[in-house]
Amino acid sequence: MEEKILELIELRKFGELKTMLSEMNAADIAQIFEEIDEKDLLVVFRILPKELAAEVFVEMDSDMQQLLIEAFSDKELREVMDELFMDDTVDIIDEMPATVAKRILKQTDANTRRMINQLLAYPDDSAGSIMTTEYIDLKKDMTVDAAFDRIRKIGFDTETIYACYVTDRSRHLLGIVSIKDLLLNPKDEVLSNIMDENVISVNTLEDKEQVAMDFEKYDLLAMPVVDLENRLVGIVTVDDAIDVMKEEVTEDIEKMAAILPSEHSYFKTGIFETFKARIPWLLLLMISATFTGAIISKFEDKLTVFAGLIAFIPMLMDTGGNSGSQASVTVIRSISLGDIEFSDILKVLWKEIRVAFCCSAVLAIVNLGKLLLVDYWLLGTFKGDGKPLLEIAVVCSTLFCTVIVAKIVGCSLPIIAKKIGFDPAVMASPLITTVVDAISLMIYFSFAAMILGT
Amino acid sequence: MEEKILELIELRKFGELKTMLSEMNAADIAQIFEEIDEKDLLVVFRILPKELAAEVFVEMDSDMQQLLIEAFSDKELREVMDELFMDDTVDIIDEMPATVAKRILKQTDANTRRMINQLLAYPDDSAGSIMTTEYIDLKKDMTVDAAFDRIRKIGFDTETIYACYVTDRSRHLLGIVSIKDLLLNPKDEVLSNIMDENVISVNTLEDKEQVAMDFEKYDLLAMPVVDLENRLVGIVTVDDAIDVMKEEVTEDIEKMAAILPSEHSYFKTGIFETFKARIPWLLLLMISATFTGAIISKFEDKLTVFAGLIAFIPMLMDTGGNSGSQASVTVIRSISLGDIEFSDILKVLWKEIRVAFCCSAVLAIVNLGKLLLVDYWLLGTFKGDGKPLLEIAVVCSTLFCTVIVAKIVGCSLPIIAKKIGFDPAVMASPLITTVVDAISLMIYFSFAAMILGT
Repeated sequence: MEEKILELIELRKFGELKTMLSEMNAADIAQIFEEIDEKDLLVVFRILPKELAAEVFVEMDSDMQQLLIEAFSDKELREVMDELFMDDTVDIIDEMPATVAKRILKQTDANTRRMINQLLAYPDDSAGSIMTTEYIDLKKDMTVDAAFDRIRKIGFDTETIYACYVTDRSRHLLGIVSIKDLLLNPKDEVLSNIMDENVISVNTLEDKEQVAMDFEKYDLLAMPVVDLENRLVGIVTVDDAIDVMKEEVTEDIEKMAAILPSEHSYFKTGIFETFKARIPWLLLLMISATFTGAIISKFEDKLTVFAGLIAFIPMLMDTGGNSGSQASVTVIRSISLGDIEFSDILKVLWKEIRVAFCCSAVLAIVNLGKLLLVDYWLLGTFKGDGKPLLEIAVVCSTLFCTVIVAKIVGCSLPIIAKKIGFDPAVMASPLITTVVDAISLMIYFSFAAMILGT
Repeated sequence: MEEKILELIELRKFGELKTMLSEMNAADIAQIFEEIDEKDLLVVFRILPKELAAEVFVEMDSDMQQLLIEAFSDKELREVMDELFMDDTVDIIDEMPATVAKRILKQTDANTRRMINQLLAYPDDSAGSIMTTEYIDLKKDMTVDAAFDRIRKIGFDTETIYACYVTDRSRHLLGIVSIKDLLLNPKDEVLSNIMDENVISVNTLEDKEQVAMDFEKYDLLAMPVVDLENRLVGIVTVDDAIDVMKEEVTEDIEKMAAILPSEHSYFKTGIFETFKARIPWLLLLMISATFTGAIISKFEDKLTVFAGLIAFIPMLMDTGGNSGSQASVTVIRSISLGDIEFSDILKVLWKEIRVAFCCSAVLAIVNLGKLLLVDYWLLGTFKGDGKPLLEIAVVCSTLFCTVIVAKIVGCSLPIIAKKIGFDPAVMASPLITTVVDAISLMIYFSFAAMILGT
């Protein structure tokens, strides 16, 4: 498909191209347009039927949108903008440099301009920033028939017609009727009798992540957004909620990997931007790790006596780190799914301690088996430094304790972070690893001191 | 709200409770029911109006559903089941023990039973397993008015009425009309003139994760599912697609933390089940880490001479691991978002190498500054073992190279894994860390040999 289209562009067969594109989906067209030469882009874009052109425009990324806008005549710009829903218009303007944004605003009428500026003013993470202002509003004394008339009249310009909102004269939200309700009720029924007054709505300043979670919980197609006086100002549609879910997950995953969240996709993020997102945590964790080094320094003299112990440091540190991050990541994900709250901390601890006992027992036994049976007796590769059996005891008991401590630290830090207002996702593998490393070495050297009598 | 309801149950004020519950949302009620005593559950459930009761039932978790089913009379069971959509019925039966499942099936008529068994047979990760069989089917020679008549007739029993599917006599999918199309066209228009023949559909065996991604890409509310002969057999609705997205993300995050994916939420997963999900990777990674230990063993003699070098091992290993997992997690997420494919591997490598140079330069310089200015000159805490300046050179140059190698390994392993059919998510922090640990120690000791002449 993609190759065929690129070939038609190459051969300048625009008639055939037009027929082909007209039958395709906007998202697919936008994806193919990414591959087109800049100089051909405007020509090919102009081939598209007006409505489809606007849909494709919305699906493009902002670099390409900017290219097109700069190439558009004022008339073309107005035509595309007229077809867009308010939330898409605002998203596009938000991404453009000031001069381009100004030019777009100049092509809109005063009313729309005021609305756009109002929407641009909402904080980036608020429900207001993702809502659209085109929705179907009905009055409670309308009949079903009258409601259908109104939908037929204004439905062309609204993003969804499936949820209709009943408001009073001052736009206070009174209830909700779905098209299904309207279709399945007699034509002369009055809306006040069939509307659902128990409407789930959010405030314009509500966190958009919370809004996305509500979509999932209540299986919504659209969510009404109200201002502080409970006046309906817009709606969020499910496709925008899905986009928010996707963004939030990416952000969480990035935080868990000690990366500051970035806004753009991989290849759209510049080298310096990627560097800036990664270096702060790397620096912080590097400096923290020097404390772990300091613990080793203190035991340096003894390590020169029992040099065999050094070889187990990576295994102990890694296993501790992995055990801890298993617990922390599980807990972080459960917190963001709403399964774990601060009040559950003891329940979580109790569960993790029991899991930790099972894990550490198996790990210690396997390790004991390997060292004792394979390395010491069978192969004779483990000689130790005079006290091989005691050294094995030090390693295995350290392993056992480290895994348990790691799980406890791993499961509790995210919950505590959440409680004191930090992002729990930050308490994932890298930070847990650094903490657990230090603890595991302290355990190791304490056991060495006790058992080997150093 | 929740406390008030629990109080009303305590006080046996069922009249008041009924009024209160009737005005609430099913998802909220199900959440509160989690807190109710088992013995009260059936009593309170019986208070709910029939339709709401079924909605609440669907939102409960399977343990509670089983409790209720076992307490239901046959008549009650039939009443609840009659209200459910086919996909929910199948999900519930899928979670029940065989005897309970049998009892549910006995309460359904032969036709439904056949349908349920057919749906149960689809693989767990297929589109067929999440679709529902209740949808609106229209014929292409119907008028808009006739279509509305059919929707009014069968719309009560379908999960969504917003997308209607036009099929021929043998149920081949011909096109799609939305309610919006129907409302905005004249009543005597024939469907064949207004339907969209360019329908996006999936096969019953399509991976459900792919289906969820299509919802996001094409902003769909429902996706038609067809069999191998292109006959329409069901639809997937957007709420189910959202659930799939959520599950898949949790699975990816678990894999990245070296946990085998589990099916249930945190507290619903037993100790042994959690243990089983975590121990395989812990064992595997522990054993891999012993190879890192073997590298240290080989250099043991030299380490006893330059014992100061031991203290830097955790810092070098951790920084390498963190650098690597930043790259791998970014790439893994981009792969699952469809931003990176195998053909991009050189582009990714080139980008990561440049980012790595920036990061490693900063890290090495900061480290050099700390060791040279603070530890060596200012505080005098770093004495080294005869050759302090050379030792500092070894540490900083190792750090520089380790970070670059870590980024290269981190970004390429997931892409290669994907290419050869493994899950890229598995190539996240823990595995990368183990690989990078070994490499960083080899670099460390090689530099030590070269610079210190050991």
